[in-house]
Amino acid sequence: MAIDLYWGSGSPYAWRVLLALEFKRLPYVSHVLQFSKQEHKSPQMLAMNPRGRVPVLKDGDYVVFESLAVLFYLDRKYPAPPIFGQTPEEAGVIMRVICEFQDFAEPEVTKILSAVFSPKTPPLPAPDLTQAMHVVASEARTIEGRLSKSNWIVGENFSAADMVFFPSIQLLLRALKRPVAADLSSRFLPLETNYPALGRWLARVEALPGYERTYPPHWRETRG
Amino acid sequence: MAIDLYWGSGSPYAWRVLLALEFKRLPYVSHVLQFSKQEHKSPQMLAMNPRGRVPVLKDGDYVVFESLAVLFYLDRKYPAPPIFGQTPEEAGVIMRVICEFQDFAEPEVTKILSAVFSPKTPPLPAPDLTQAMHVVASEARTIEGRLSKSNWIVGENFSAADMVFFPSIQLLLRALKRPVAADLSSRFLPLETNYPALGRWLARVEALPGYERTYPPHWRETRG
Repeated sequence: MAIDLYWGSGSPYAWRVLLALEFKRLPYVSHVLQFSKQEHKSPQMLAMNPRGRVPVLKDGDYVVFESLAVLFYLDRKYPAPPIFGQTPEEAGVIMRVICEFQDFAEPEVTKILSAVFSPKTPPLPAPDLTQAMHVVASEARTIEGRLSKSNWIVGENFSAADMVFFPSIQLLLRALKRPVAADLSSRFLPLETNYPALGRWLARVEALPGYERTYPPHWRETRG
Repeated sequence: MAIDLYWGSGSPYAWRVLLALEFKRLPYVSHVLQFSKQEHKSPQMLAMNPRGRVPVLKDGDYVVFESLAVLFYLDRKYPAPPIFGQTPEEAGVIMRVICEFQDFAEPEVTKILSAVFSPKTPPLPAPDLTQAMHVVASEARTIEGRLSKSNWIVGENFSAADMVFFPSIQLLLRALKRPVAADLSSRFLPLETNYPALGRWLARVEALPGYERTYPPHWRETRG
């Protein structure tokens, strides 16, 4: 029985699952779908996920999607090393910070990504974008606080919380480095100055075994 | 060591946790906070959850919030009966349908609840509200499909998926029964006709032991 992962380059949700598979050292067959060719909406993909979104993970005959559910399944099926904590208490904190990230930070990050990468639709008013950046900066300070006391988002180990946060922060940084985002990024960048612990944590994740296999293929061309 | 639950009447997020505590037959001290008196933002509450939201669960010295994280913690700490499935495969499906609910249904339900219960802010255009209702009706058909094949949302047992769906659906029905929502509700109600399996499932949850203790106290006055 093999694990098949269907994903797309640059999807933060797919990236979470790639980080989990590499961290657990699970062998998997990687299927990179081309969003531009609508491969994620092919009949084969819609048969697995009618909503036509990635990632989709197939483990033998079993199919699971929605990135948090995939992480949860993998941790129940292949418990070592754990990604949702060693104890119930740690599990609760990991899930809590993931939920907080999804409730408070992610919607604002999404607004900024849309404005930078898809500047045509929808046209978000500048004050709304400034407000989104304000919220993101505030959430980033909370994360900076956690990371100034620990190497990882929760506890002493790389966990599902790191896997959820990391891709979104990478996408945000990529967006903020675009010339069009210069005004927006002025109080956030350079990361090394404003959020030094966050910067060190990014480097720590990038140094994990297998990280290169999780890196969005289409980013390599513009990597600098 | 006792479990303390801090909650507010009518919060769907708190209701999820009450359903879990009753299902697991865990003894707990119930602290109903008055939103109108801003008791959820008191210094004592903010010390536990700086975001000032409920539910907050305290188990001895351990504090956890964000409803999904509370459910997750309770299931790890007090595994029997399980609420995230008996197997990894079932766990994946339960978390997947919860994530889908949160991604697709809940934002639209929230728009409708805001329009009905807080008609002043923000003023949502009627077409947007009709569109929200359209999405909700479509998601409800998917749930109806699940419940026409099984007594519960996932598998053969009451699970975290039921606990997440149930309070939001109750709030939605309460909103749609208001005279101001008559136009909006015309294709959704009566539930017994349009979504019969969903109607039977609601009755099934209401018949669970301890259900009465989870029912929003301030709803009793207007119960019919």
